Amino acid sequence: MDFIKAYIDQNKDRFLEELFGLLRIPSVSSLADHKPDMYRAAKYWKKTLIAAGADKAELYETPGNPVIYGEKIIDPAYPTILIYAHMDVMPVDPINLWNSQPFEPEIREGRIWARGADDDKGQSFMHAKAFEIMMKSGQMKCNIKFMIEGEEEVGSPNLGAWCEAHKEMLRADIILVSDTGMIAADTPSITAGLRGLAYLEVEVTGPDRDLHSGIFGGAVANPANILAKLIASLHDEKNRITIPGFYDDVIVVSDTERRAMAEAPFNLENYKKAIGINQEWGEEGFTTIERTGIRPTLDVCGMWSGYTGEGAKTVLPSKAYAKISMRLVPNQDYKKISSLFEAYFLKIAPPYVKVKVTDLHGGQGYVAPIDMPAWKAADKAYMETFGKLPIPTRSGGSIPIISTFEQVLGIKSLLMGFGLESDAIHSPNENFPLENFYKGIETIAHFYNHFASEMKK
Amino acid sequence: MDFIKAYIDQNKDRFLEELFGLLRIPSVSSLADHKPDMYRAAKYWKKTLIAAGADKAELYETPGNPVIYGEKIIDPAYPTILIYAHMDVMPVDPINLWNSQPFEPEIREGRIWARGADDDKGQSFMHAKAFEIMMKSGQMKCNIKFMIEGEEEVGSPNLGAWCEAHKEMLRADIILVSDTGMIAADTPSITAGLRGLAYLEVEVTGPDRDLHSGIFGGAVANPANILAKLIASLHDEKNRITIPGFYDDVIVVSDTERRAMAEAPFNLENYKKAIGINQEWGEEGFTTIERTGIRPTLDVCGMWSGYTGEGAKTVLPSKAYAKISMRLVPNQDYKKISSLFEAYFLKIAPPYVKVKVTDLHGGQGYVAPIDMPAWKAADKAYMETFGKLPIPTRSGGSIPIISTFEQVLGIKSLLMGFGLESDAIHSPNENFPLENFYKGIETIAHFYNHFASEMKK
Repeated sequence: MDFIKAYIDQNKDRFLEELFGLLRIPSVSSLADHKPDMYRAAKYWKKTLIAAGADKAELYETPGNPVIYGEKIIDPAYPTILIYAHMDVMPVDPINLWNSQPFEPEIREGRIWARGADDDKGQSFMHAKAFEIMMKSGQMKCNIKFMIEGEEEVGSPNLGAWCEAHKEMLRADIILVSDTGMIAADTPSITAGLRGLAYLEVEVTGPDRDLHSGIFGGAVANPANILAKLIASLHDEKNRITIPGFYDDVIVVSDTERRAMAEAPFNLENYKKAIGINQEWGEEGFTTIERTGIRPTLDVCGMWSGYTGEGAKTVLPSKAYAKISMRLVPNQDYKKISSLFEAYFLKIAPPYVKVKVTDLHGGQGYVAPIDMPAWKAADKAYMETFGKLPIPTRSGGSIPIISTFEQVLGIKSLLMGFGLESDAIHSPNENFPLENFYKGIETIAHFYNHFASEMKK
Repeated sequence: MDFIKAYIDQNKDRFLEELFGLLRIPSVSSLADHKPDMYRAAKYWKKTLIAAGADKAELYETPGNPVIYGEKIIDPAYPTILIYAHMDVMPVDPINLWNSQPFEPEIREGRIWARGADDDKGQSFMHAKAFEIMMKSGQMKCNIKFMIEGEEEVGSPNLGAWCEAHKEMLRADIILVSDTGMIAADTPSITAGLRGLAYLEVEVTGPDRDLHSGIFGGAVANPANILAKLIASLHDEKNRITIPGFYDDVIVVSDTERRAMAEAPFNLENYKKAIGINQEWGEEGFTTIERTGIRPTLDVCGMWSGYTGEGAKTVLPSKAYAKISMRLVPNQDYKKISSLFEAYFLKIAPPYVKVKVTDLHGGQGYVAPIDMPAWKAADKAYMETFGKLPIPTRSGGSIPIISTFEQVLGIKSLLMGFGLESDAIHSPNENFPLENFYKGIETIAHFYNHFASEMKK
């Protein structure tokens, strides 16, 4: 299948140019101001799919951001692949830490630098281009459907209902997703498990207005100090989460599986160096890989109270806030965990403050069977491109919608991710290596062929 | 001395109009952008003092904001009063909670509403007008000096050195200050004790950049969670501060004095209602009055980390910050306490984060003798205006410069404050009752007379 590599070589600059057009659109879904950008991104995708060879591509309104659906039905007898991706990106704060403008993509050091370079514009665009290659070369032996949403980074609040309403249209044999990472540039992997997510915001109110910290300090509960105490009490000395019932539904992973996980190439010293820490941290009795792969966690994603500007303001704040995310393992239900959190947080709040808990979003975990035809097709596709079989891994991240697809559409997903840890997704200086971009396109194109063969068996 | 009241009556609208001119200048000393406003405020004061009857009024540069010094030397044989005040104000955040614009003063419900209406523009302006009354009426029997600084709200970092450099010029028998409160509108009081202040900022660093909370969460120490734990550990279960040595220099107040303090009019239910809390809080074994009057405290004045915007961003932050103020009682040295804090905070920081502590500012506590001539003169002045003797109180607040005056100039201060608890200083909707403004002017004018008499004894 040399035509794939040849096509990429002949078109590599144009592929990048087209991706840059998408990266330039600041489609930040969590900020209401960027609503018009979501429509710009949607229209860009519509144009991209038609140009690549889709029969049709339509913009579907939802109560939130639009969904782009496109398809190419070649032969009803062919197997059907539904590609899922998202066109929205994370906010760019803190903007001052970026070395180049987040929405002005640049190539430096063999990488694409931009917000969304990896997550998920770079990775999703590989699918558009793999589709184009197979169509233009007349080699496509699958029917292809694209479903590109605009709310993944805020928990896909509307896509479940949209899928429910378009079940028939979305029928497929597999959902293909590139929104995860691989172990290393020379070590391909496929994510077999994803963590679920429960994300809440807490508000602690002390006095009904900011007070002078001298005149009132010591006699009135300070909501920032109280919030600190409440957050501190959510972990015990073994770094286990103290919410009663939190671990009840966690499936204990067998020693055999833990030994297998330990075989994955992982260097703790390199890991620490890559993120600039002196010492790792986590739940007692588990390794770093296990802590993100098979154990649930609780993290403060944001926290604020009182005066945060320059210099010293002596204030006893009225309010203190925190955004708290819990990553869940398969079999933990995010709704149950959110309820347990809320009940516990309200229970431990002392009587001299008022506490409010708001559920911001959530999603279930997911496990993919490694013996399904799509996995076998992927094995062959990666072998052609990387000369190696992909290693099945469990990601600490969450793609809440993946478990929704299974529940609503009854279709499994295959998570062929090409991102690297150094891509800094969700952070300043997000980037994506050019090599991964082109190898990803090649691997996906091969996958189309092998999936057609596997499905014939 | 009916001429005082008569003069106020004839000029009350003009007094307000002139105060409003000062209130309209947004002289926020903690924000560098407002530097030009500090000069506008200084010039406004210069003009005000000359118009009131000063022989001279000059702007003195310092490494920070300018000082205005003005004087009227009538007779070297007269006693000399040095009036200290500050022209700078606190920031106005959160601006959305103000009912009118902070720098567009308004009269509503018999009060002046503006940032600085009480602290300290409203209160300091009373001195300018009392001075004017005595001068225009030809009744002044004291020499008067004014020293108006522009950095009180950031800890007066330059005024100590400026005093040192102008010792001779500043010679006086008493320093008169109106930058504190009184117990209630019908219960005058004078602050006999002030708490000291140590104010520090802490920075906790986890990974060297913001990370994806799914991919890294559970395996990397989250600086926001760690900061919460560190802050929580600064108080024990009895709400005592855990820093070793923190209480070593605290003078144990006698039971007799504690009983006397308990005599001051205070209604806990009204106190709680006034600030909207259900239950008071504080160090075990002490009353609310004692907790702010005779006990040191530790409060978070500000705290921030990670994503604090709209919606949900799943990030494991790189950094977490807190601004922490400790209110100290007389005999506690703020430099020693700052060092103890820093040493302890660095000691309890776990090895998987980096911690930095920055000393932002501080000042010593202060006690005024209630048998000095100035106190006796004040007793008589208040008796004329309010028909009651002022109650000596201990304020929980700090005016760090007051103890500096004693050390550098060897002069005691008399803290004649006319603010009320409801004035919301340092908060949104700062205000100052018109009645307090005019009664303050009257009381201060009477004080000039009585002080001249007391000093002759």
